[in-house]
Amino acid sequence: MLKIKEHIESNQDDYLELLFKFLRQKSISAQNVGMEEASTMLKGIMEDIGIETRLIETDGHPVVYGELHNDKNDFTLLIYGHYDVQPPDPVNEWNSPPFEPTIRDGRIYCRGVGDNKGQLMAQLLAIKTFKEVHGDNLPINIKFVFEGEEESGSPNLAKFVETNSELLKADLVYTSDGPMHETGAPFVLLGVRGMLYVELNAKGAKWDNHSGNKGNIAPNPAWKLVNLLNTMRDENGKVLIDGFYDDLREPTQSELELISTLPYDADQIAQQIGYKKFDMTKEDYYHKLTMEPTLNIAGFHSGYGGEGSKTIIPATAQLKIDMRLVVDQDPDDIYEKFVKHVHKYDPNIEVTRHGSMKPSRTSSDSEVVSIIKRAVENSYRQKPILQPSLGGSLPDYVWTQILGVPSVVVPYANSDEANHSPNENLNIENFFNGILCTCHVIEELGTSKFDK
Amino acid sequence: MLKIKEHIESNQDDYLELLFKFLRQKSISAQNVGMEEASTMLKGIMEDIGIETRLIETDGHPVVYGELHNDKNDFTLLIYGHYDVQPPDPVNEWNSPPFEPTIRDGRIYCRGVGDNKGQLMAQLLAIKTFKEVHGDNLPINIKFVFEGEEESGSPNLAKFVETNSELLKADLVYTSDGPMHETGAPFVLLGVRGMLYVELNAKGAKWDNHSGNKGNIAPNPAWKLVNLLNTMRDENGKVLIDGFYDDLREPTQSELELISTLPYDADQIAQQIGYKKFDMTKEDYYHKLTMEPTLNIAGFHSGYGGEGSKTIIPATAQLKIDMRLVVDQDPDDIYEKFVKHVHKYDPNIEVTRHGSMKPSRTSSDSEVVSIIKRAVENSYRQKPILQPSLGGSLPDYVWTQILGVPSVVVPYANSDEANHSPNENLNIENFFNGILCTCHVIEELGTSKFDK
Repeated sequence: MLKIKEHIESNQDDYLELLFKFLRQKSISAQNVGMEEASTMLKGIMEDIGIETRLIETDGHPVVYGELHNDKNDFTLLIYGHYDVQPPDPVNEWNSPPFEPTIRDGRIYCRGVGDNKGQLMAQLLAIKTFKEVHGDNLPINIKFVFEGEEESGSPNLAKFVETNSELLKADLVYTSDGPMHETGAPFVLLGVRGMLYVELNAKGAKWDNHSGNKGNIAPNPAWKLVNLLNTMRDENGKVLIDGFYDDLREPTQSELELISTLPYDADQIAQQIGYKKFDMTKEDYYHKLTMEPTLNIAGFHSGYGGEGSKTIIPATAQLKIDMRLVVDQDPDDIYEKFVKHVHKYDPNIEVTRHGSMKPSRTSSDSEVVSIIKRAVENSYRQKPILQPSLGGSLPDYVWTQILGVPSVVVPYANSDEANHSPNENLNIENFFNGILCTCHVIEELGTSKFDK
Repeated sequence: MLKIKEHIESNQDDYLELLFKFLRQKSISAQNVGMEEASTMLKGIMEDIGIETRLIETDGHPVVYGELHNDKNDFTLLIYGHYDVQPPDPVNEWNSPPFEPTIRDGRIYCRGVGDNKGQLMAQLLAIKTFKEVHGDNLPINIKFVFEGEEESGSPNLAKFVETNSELLKADLVYTSDGPMHETGAPFVLLGVRGMLYVELNAKGAKWDNHSGNKGNIAPNPAWKLVNLLNTMRDENGKVLIDGFYDDLREPTQSELELISTLPYDADQIAQQIGYKKFDMTKEDYYHKLTMEPTLNIAGFHSGYGGEGSKTIIPATAQLKIDMRLVVDQDPDDIYEKFVKHVHKYDPNIEVTRHGSMKPSRTSSDSEVVSIIKRAVENSYRQKPILQPSLGGSLPDYVWTQILGVPSVVVPYANSDEANHSPNENLNIENFFNGILCTCHVIEELGTSKFDK
C-alpha cells in the first residue's frame, strides 16, 4: 500500500482538479437543474478511468451504472453513491459561491462536496489509483450504482434494484455517505432503522363549539386522540399495539458486544440534543437508538393556539406520528396493525399513510464485515467504530432485502461537513484518506478467501 | 294590566323613537368609542322618566346608577344591564348601517339592539309606563345598575359591587340579557357555571430533534402532556384531580324536578352542535350541561402540523384547558388543586392562569323565584322554562356571592337576535313584550307579602 499512498500524494492536484470539475456541474435533483449534464459528465469520467459505463433510465433521473470485471475472482463489490445534491438555499449564507469549489483552511467548500460528490469521486479515484499502480486487472469485480435522486428520497431506487437484480448481483454493497464519527474515528455502519409515517384526523362536530354552552355536550376530538394515544404506548415508552414487537429481531451477542465497545459521552449527547442533562447508560442509549422501535408524536394540533384564551371545543384534531422500525418489522405489517388498533378504538378516526421505509441490518458476524473492518483499520491506522444500526433511516433495505446481500456504510466526510446546509465542506485530508480507504478495501477483498 | 297594555300600544312610536335615539349613540367599550356620550345620554333618559340617577366612576367606564323609592314597601329590586355594545365588525356584512336602526320584516336591525340596549330600554320604559298609568309611586323600590364594560368582560363589576354593597342592598337582582328559548317560550335562568382557563407549556430539548437520529433519546413534550392529561380525566369524562368534586353542590330535588319539565329535542341539539347524532337522555343532557363541571381541551399544539410529513421530535408542547365550574367550586381552590396535580406529575411543566369566574346559582325553591315565574307566565300567557343554570359563564356571582341576594335572568330578545354578529336584531314584538313583562314583575313583587 506504500505505492498506492505515494501515488495518491503525487497526483493530488490532478485529483482535486477532477473533483472540482464535477462539483462545478450543478445537479439539483429537486429542481431538475443540470441533471442530464451531470450524469453525462460522470459517465465520461468513469469511462476515462476505464470503467464500462452506461446510463440506465428510471422514472426519474438516470442511474449511472458501471462495471469492472476480473477474470480470476468472482467476488463482486457494488459501490453505491449519488450524483445529485441539495439545493444551495439560503445562498446568501454561503461565504463563497455554492457551486464554485473554494479552499479555505484545508477544507473544500462547495455544495455537494461532502454529500456525496467528494465521497463518490474518492471511490472512482481509488480505482484509477489502483489501476495505475497495479495494472488494469483489479483483484475483484466492481459494480457502480450512482443514482440521481437520493436528495429527493430515492423514489425509484427500489424499483430499479428489483428490475435489475440480475445485473446488480453482488457479494457486498459498499456506501460512503454521511459524516464520520464525532471523535474523528472511522465509522462502519451495519444497518438503519426503518420508518412509517402516519397522520390521524379525528372529527368532532362540524364547527368549533362554545365550551360553556356546549361543555360536556359537544364531542371533543382532541380528548379522543389523547385517549387513543394512551392505549398505544405506556409511560415507559412501550408500544401497546397488538403484535408491534412480533417481528423484532433480538440483538445478537456480537451486536451487544459491539455496543459495549462504542464510544459514549453523555454530556456531548446532551449538548447535541439540546437538553440540560442526559443520564442514560451507554448500553441503554445504543439499545434505544439502534435496537428499539419508536412511536413518536411528530405533531399534534387541535383548537386554539394563540395568545391568551379562547373558550372552544375544537371541531378537529390532527396527529402526526412517525415510527422508527427495527429489523424485521415490516412497515406494511405495522401499518395494518396500527390501523386495526385505531379503528378498534374508533372507526371514525381517519388514518393516512405518508411514507415508509423498511429497516435493514447486516450481521456483524458476517465475514465481509470483518474484512471491511480490517481494511478500514489498516487504512486509518485506527480501530473503526462499528455500530449495528443508525438511529435514522436510509434505503439500505434495497440491498439487504431486495438484492439480498450484506451492506456496509463507511462514511469518508468530516463530522462537521454541514451537508444540506450553507458552507458544506470536506476536509481535503478526508478526501485523500477516502481514496486510500477504498484501495485498502479492494485489496483486502481481493486477497481474502470466501466461503461463498 | 289591561291599562298598561293599552298604554304601551298607544305609545309605541314614542317608545321606538327613544330606543332609536339610544341605539344611534355608539358605545363600543372595547374601542372606547362614544362611552362618555352614551352614559350621559342614558342618565338623561332615566332622569326624564323620574329616576334619581348618577354616574359612578370605576377604573373603567362609569356605571349609570339609578334609584326609585317607595315609602310603603321595603322590597328592593335591582335591575342590571349594560349600555356598551360589541364592535360592529365585519361592517360590510351588514345589510343596513350598523348604528342606524332600520326596521325590516318586524325587526329592528342595529348593533346593540338585542345586546343589551333594547332590553335595557324595555326596563326603563316599563317604569315610565307604570308611572304614567298608576302614578309616580311604584309598589316597590327599584335600583338600576347599568355598566359600560360587559362586552369587555366586566373587569370592574366585582370591585364596584364590593365597594358599593350598602348602596346596592336589594332583595332580588333581575337581568334581561341574552336570547329567549329556541321554542320562543319565555326563559328564566337561575344560575351559571363558573370558569377557569389555564395554559400548560412543556419543554423538551432546546430545538426540534430528528426523529431518527434522536428517536427514543430526545425527550418528547407532546407525549408528556398526553400522559399528564390521562392522569387528569378518565375516558368517561370523570376528572381525576384530587379534590376536584369536593365542593360540588348536589342538585336539589326541586332542581331535578325542574330539569324533568324542560323541553328537549335531541335532533335540534345535534343540529345546533353540528354533530350527526345525539343520543343523551334529557336528564343526562341537562345534568351534564348545568350540574357537572367540565375539563375541556380548548387547544393542543406541538410539532409539525402542515401538509405531509416532517420527522421531528418537537421541542415544545402547549395545551389550553378550560374548566366550567359548578357551585360551590371555587376557581382559586380548583386552580391550586390543578397546579398541585400537574407539578406532582412533573414540576417542570409551566402553568399559566388566563382567567376565571365563580359559578352562581339561585335556589329554585326561593320565594322570589316563584313570583318572577308567575309574573312572566302572566305576561306571556305561557309557562316559562326555568333552567337551574346556564352551561356558560356570566358574572352572576357578583350578585349571589358578593352582594348575597338571589338573581334571575329573564331574556327578552328573540333567540335569533345575532348578538355579537352582523345584522344583530330585535323583534319589535319582543321589545314591547319586554316592557309588559317588567310591568308584570313590578306588579307581582309589589302585591306579594314576603317573609323577609
